[in-house]
Amino acid sequence: MICEILSVGTELLMGQIANTDAQYLSRKLSQMGITVYRHSVVGDNPDRLREAVKTALSRCDLLITSGGLGPTEDDITKEIVCEVMGFPLALHEESKEAIEAFFARVGREMTPNNLRQAMQPVGGIVMRNRKGTAPGCIVEKDGKIAAVLPGPPRELSGMFEDQLEPYLLQKTGLTFFSEYLRIVGVGESKVEAVLEDLFHSADPTLALYCAPGEVQARITAACRRGEDGSQKTAPVKKEIYRRLGNSVYAEGEDASMAATLLDMMRSRGMKLALAESCTGGLLASKLVALSGASDVLLASLVTYANSAKEALLGVPSTILNTCGAVSSECALAMARGAREKTGADCAISVTGIAGPGGGTPEKPVGTVYVGLSGPFGDKWERLSLTGDRTHIREVTCLYAMNLMRLAILSPDQ
Amino acid sequence: MICEILSVGTELLMGQIANTDAQYLSRKLSQMGITVYRHSVVGDNPDRLREAVKTALSRCDLLITSGGLGPTEDDITKEIVCEVMGFPLALHEESKEAIEAFFARVGREMTPNNLRQAMQPVGGIVMRNRKGTAPGCIVEKDGKIAAVLPGPPRELSGMFEDQLEPYLLQKTGLTFFSEYLRIVGVGESKVEAVLEDLFHSADPTLALYCAPGEVQARITAACRRGEDGSQKTAPVKKEIYRRLGNSVYAEGEDASMAATLLDMMRSRGMKLALAESCTGGLLASKLVALSGASDVLLASLVTYANSAKEALLGVPSTILNTCGAVSSECALAMARGAREKTGADCAISVTGIAGPGGGTPEKPVGTVYVGLSGPFGDKWERLSLTGDRTHIREVTCLYAMNLMRLAILSPDQ
Repeated sequence: MICEILSVGTELLMGQIANTDAQYLSRKLSQMGITVYRHSVVGDNPDRLREAVKTALSRCDLLITSGGLGPTEDDITKEIVCEVMGFPLALHEESKEAIEAFFARVGREMTPNNLRQAMQPVGGIVMRNRKGTAPGCIVEKDGKIAAVLPGPPRELSGMFEDQLEPYLLQKTGLTFFSEYLRIVGVGESKVEAVLEDLFHSADPTLALYCAPGEVQARITAACRRGEDGSQKTAPVKKEIYRRLGNSVYAEGEDASMAATLLDMMRSRGMKLALAESCTGGLLASKLVALSGASDVLLASLVTYANSAKEALLGVPSTILNTCGAVSSECALAMARGAREKTGADCAISVTGIAGPGGGTPEKPVGTVYVGLSGPFGDKWERLSLTGDRTHIREVTCLYAMNLMRLAILSPDQ
Repeated sequence: MICEILSVGTELLMGQIANTDAQYLSRKLSQMGITVYRHSVVGDNPDRLREAVKTALSRCDLLITSGGLGPTEDDITKEIVCEVMGFPLALHEESKEAIEAFFARVGREMTPNNLRQAMQPVGGIVMRNRKGTAPGCIVEKDGKIAAVLPGPPRELSGMFEDQLEPYLLQKTGLTFFSEYLRIVGVGESKVEAVLEDLFHSADPTLALYCAPGEVQARITAACRRGEDGSQKTAPVKKEIYRRLGNSVYAEGEDASMAATLLDMMRSRGMKLALAESCTGGLLASKLVALSGASDVLLASLVTYANSAKEALLGVPSTILNTCGAVSSECALAMARGAREKTGADCAISVTGIAGPGGGTPEKPVGTVYVGLSGPFGDKWERLSLTGDRTHIREVTCLYAMNLMRLAILSPDQ
């Protein structure tokens, strides 16, 4: 099935927002084995929109539009798609009631304009919108399918997953089952080399995606009705674990190192403290971003100035004067200090040079010391990172959490 | 001048990346008074790419492409654009030398393939690439202009600003001068109402953009050669300051509250400490993200647990037991404690309920207390924020920094 995605909105052509709808749909469709040949964006102009719809439908089997379903005169996507496909519109009672209920719930007044959103194609499928007022629709004729989705990303993804995805999966007769493994501490080219033979399989397929400091492996199996995808992906998954061991830190598309570490420490009843210099609170912030972090995290001492390292963490001035703040000695003293001052079971410390200034030949920009203190004893590691200030701080957080994870998993190493 | 943007790359159609190139170009072109009618994306397929180039050139005056300039067989954008426009390619010595120099500098070996990147249109303008190996080019014929840019965002923006932008500004005979004012603490609709009459001006124009917790006003003047844009924007700017006063916290497209506060405190020789609960290090992280934060920021005590508020900041247990951690009393004690423990001139504290859990009828999710301590005395403010955990934490940081800024500006209020 060949698909085109047509996004409608002057705000896209003015550069006020990026077309993340097209990215989201493309990723989802590619996972379903549907090929996307083109994206297009046009503004709220009837002639150009009509021409874009006609041209796209002349070339593809499936046209998905996003945007232009609002209540104003400018919003004409549904009208034009249905006109080109030859479906008249009529008031759809259920949509009308849903829109009225939405306005009652948020306590805003409904304008007559909003009823335009309840006009739906006769003979089409109406898709309800759980997160906004604009319903979407699907019309199908002569082997061509057009699906009309709202523009706001939350509304679009909700409607796609609830309604359009199941509809398309029924059309293709296939479902796709994916598993995601998150890999840390091994570069992409190394992961690629280690797993090389596994990429030759056509079903399940294996693909790698990169993020700062980590690699994500996706294993995807195409399944006919009744087939169990997890049975098809299991051997590949097992093989990846066998070859990469502890470098696989989590499973799942939305997994994160912060969530993995929090879960691990929560299940062991462990409390954590942090002592941060170059990450400047970013590490704490990644944990606190997750609801329920308070079960584990007691405090982070962001000691950016040397005076604060002494006063708040008790780092001896001799260490600061002799070894410097960016040293294994300082990292260890910071971690021990954070543990003592807070009474936490474990502490992570970070001190380094995030740049752009401050590097020396012995300790260039990107040199970071991570200290750990816990029931496993005290440990430290020196990282040599590349990239800009933001990248160095991001990767430092990831690696620091991973070092604590490994220390808890293998306390004797 | 009517423009279309054509992006080339299978990674876009697979949803691996969002089309931020099209957004960047659209924003830049709209600021220059060039109208963008369409965005398109096609993959690395010669037939579909050729058809897209022909169609676009039949409809617009200016076609800008991004992507498909790499050294591999798949990369064919330049070849196809020049073929359609009728410009033969030949080896461009200067580009060849630049590519050789690039490889020598990064210490990687150059492959014969890379020389394809030095093939350039005879009679066209070659645009050098300061951040990668692929040069771009401009070809112009029969009133149509086609500009070919590389895909990686840093390379694209560098080449646009260095070379394509000046070329287009010469074509349009106009330059655009913009000023940006950042406004905090006043909602978008309020700003719109207060400035209402100023939106009616055709030159300079006034436009508003929103970000979490703040509004950005852009004043843009169209200038003929020799005209001074700042003279045209000055009266509008003055008027905005007159009406919004201290709510305008900075000027400039890349300004931020963190940079504003750091600059302000640096110039006064003031040192800052933070005490964070619900922001969990995010506030410190926003300051540390800026190189040179160490001139001002001494430390942040991220006291997520109540025990840490007592142990690290000396918040009396009576306050925690009687008023609770989310209270003006606790916020004040945290700010005073941070100042005392670090010896800073000023301290900001934050304690609140970021959600989704933890709200009560008296203190619903979004209730945040900000405490300030400094030469101006001790102050506190209660914020009532809406949105999800991320939004509440972001806006809290912005407002907390703004409260410190206002306290330093007007110590007697």
